[in-house]
Amino acid sequence: MSVLSTLRHPIVAAPMAGGPSTPALAAAVSAAGGLGFLAAGMIDTGRLVADVAEVRARTDRPFGVNLFLPDPGGVDEAAIQAYARRLAPQATERGVSLGAPVGGDDAYPEKLAALLADPVPVVSFVFGLPDRVAVAALRERGTEVWATVTRPAAATAAADLGVDAVVVQGTEAGGHRGGLPDDDDYALLPLLRLVAAGCDLPLVAAGGIVDGPAVAAVLAAGAAAAQLGTAFLRCPEAGSSPMHRAAVASAAPTALTRSFTGKRARGLANDFLRQHDAAAPTGYPQVLHLTRPLLAAARRDGDASVANLWAGQAHPLARDLPAAEVVTEVGAGARAALAAAVERSTRWG
Amino acid sequence: MSVLSTLRHPIVAAPMAGGPSTPALAAAVSAAGGLGFLAAGMIDTGRLVADVAEVRARTDRPFGVNLFLPDPGGVDEAAIQAYARRLAPQATERGVSLGAPVGGDDAYPEKLAALLADPVPVVSFVFGLPDRVAVAALRERGTEVWATVTRPAAATAAADLGVDAVVVQGTEAGGHRGGLPDDDDYALLPLLRLVAAGCDLPLVAAGGIVDGPAVAAVLAAGAAAAQLGTAFLRCPEAGSSPMHRAAVASAAPTALTRSFTGKRARGLANDFLRQHDAAAPTGYPQVLHLTRPLLAAARRDGDASVANLWAGQAHPLARDLPAAEVVTEVGAGARAALAAAVERSTRWG
Repeated sequence: MSVLSTLRHPIVAAPMAGGPSTPALAAAVSAAGGLGFLAAGMIDTGRLVADVAEVRARTDRPFGVNLFLPDPGGVDEAAIQAYARRLAPQATERGVSLGAPVGGDDAYPEKLAALLADPVPVVSFVFGLPDRVAVAALRERGTEVWATVTRPAAATAAADLGVDAVVVQGTEAGGHRGGLPDDDDYALLPLLRLVAAGCDLPLVAAGGIVDGPAVAAVLAAGAAAAQLGTAFLRCPEAGSSPMHRAAVASAAPTALTRSFTGKRARGLANDFLRQHDAAAPTGYPQVLHLTRPLLAAARRDGDASVANLWAGQAHPLARDLPAAEVVTEVGAGARAALAAAVERSTRWG
Repeated sequence: MSVLSTLRHPIVAAPMAGGPSTPALAAAVSAAGGLGFLAAGMIDTGRLVADVAEVRARTDRPFGVNLFLPDPGGVDEAAIQAYARRLAPQATERGVSLGAPVGGDDAYPEKLAALLADPVPVVSFVFGLPDRVAVAALRERGTEVWATVTRPAAATAAADLGVDAVVVQGTEAGGHRGGLPDDDDYALLPLLRLVAAGCDLPLVAAGGIVDGPAVAAVLAAGAAAAQLGTAFLRCPEAGSSPMHRAAVASAAPTALTRSFTGKRARGLANDFLRQHDAAAPTGYPQVLHLTRPLLAAARRDGDASVANLWAGQAHPLARDLPAAEVVTEVGAGARAALAAAVERSTRWG
């Protein structure tokens, strides 16, 4: 029986690396009948193991862990150096030095080994597709494997790899694009329909979904569940900073940009994004490491004009509620929206 | 009683100026229980009057007419001249001269006067919001007024103008952006939810909707109806060129660009779009008039690498069927998708 079929609400907590996703949030979502997720990206393996243990201590319901796949490399070093020169005065002004724009694999092999040694119910991948060996090894240990796609062809490729489900991420999603390359611009609804036309796997719809009617919409479009990230950013269990919570609650528009990390991600459109977007090169995690001290200083200073404030397009609808209430209210809202649409449909013609 | 409440299927034919929308298509959609639309943009007033007469001769069901609002002006003439110099060699190579990059109001006052003199059931607007006087004058004559929005704040402004319904257009839509400015990037589903949070008017969801489950999705998200354009491009009643039909049937991705007309529009990503997108200035209808002879020559030559081939993101799902069958099959598919989602929802928890 698939993990999705055990849920009381068709709601998956999107993994949000860099702070927002905590064991407390994952456990609260799972305990409420959704599927909680840990974000294994940008932490070390010891921390991942500890986070998994903490979720297990808090709930016996299933949960997932999301892994960042290593970038295939081939970045334009000269472009990254030029971007470093562009940002240097701003760093100096704030009294910090930029970081070294180094590459790296986010300890992916070690994290994967840890998840094979001590399996969890679901492992999802972002930043491309996992290799066939990793998929098979995880599934042999009873772990469901989910791939993340941002274009129709990637869903077919994921199905060929033998994954159990596909996370379909539209351009309205907050945070990083989960596909590789990072420049697809499919919105969720057309992408979901195009993927469904060529792929029989359960689909988890991601991007811009905050409330019950939006969950109802993706279920009507054929998704097995909806993945919500921004909807949980204001929950007390989330690790979001006060500045991030305030930004999410505003009506400010978002934009996709490589300016913060070298990989396209959607966040609130602030001064840093507007100033540097057009000049920002492709290069993850090099640009992430480059900007990290500057962005950390901006967070420390409470300067929302410079910090990266990831959010999906429907962020003003996110509510300051315990995660369990978000799950139950959004789940109930989805049922009500479907029932209302069916009722209206009886009046046609 | 509103026109939307008289439909047998919650399907509106999107107005597609420049050829695809014909009186035959509008009449077929209306006669099948949807709402057909004429596109009044880029034709003269005499042709509009004749098209309205032809729809009436073909069906006694309600239909709509879409008007282009005149651009407020203020274009960067130097940027348009620079773009003209960039395109000149390509025009010469094809044996044509570029057009004069003139402005113009698309005979808007005259077309509006014609629609006031001989009212139609619905008039919708694109390229910003109509003025209060036009809205009131149309409504006094029994015409429903629909505004098109691409950001949440525009829906509130439209409601303040007294319109009857709001067309909510997501970034996945084919053809021109209906809002002003043209750079919003809200996808349909989050935009629909954000608009619904601040506006009680009936919402018509537009962008990337081709099949029944997508219609079901926007109904579940609170829309009163879905507006489909690309879904009708391959119908025999449409005026689409053979080259356009073939492009729509392909799996090629689309992109938003100002390169063809000076206003952002979504079309198949071909050589012309890729070569000129980054250099294309804002300036509608100046750039439209500039490129027109070049694009016409490309169409004449059957050169899909240069022609503008508008399409929404789900275009591969469009079918070569009579318009009445599209309406009835998509309508039935929407009902079935809603029923299936409700059925699945009973299994949760």
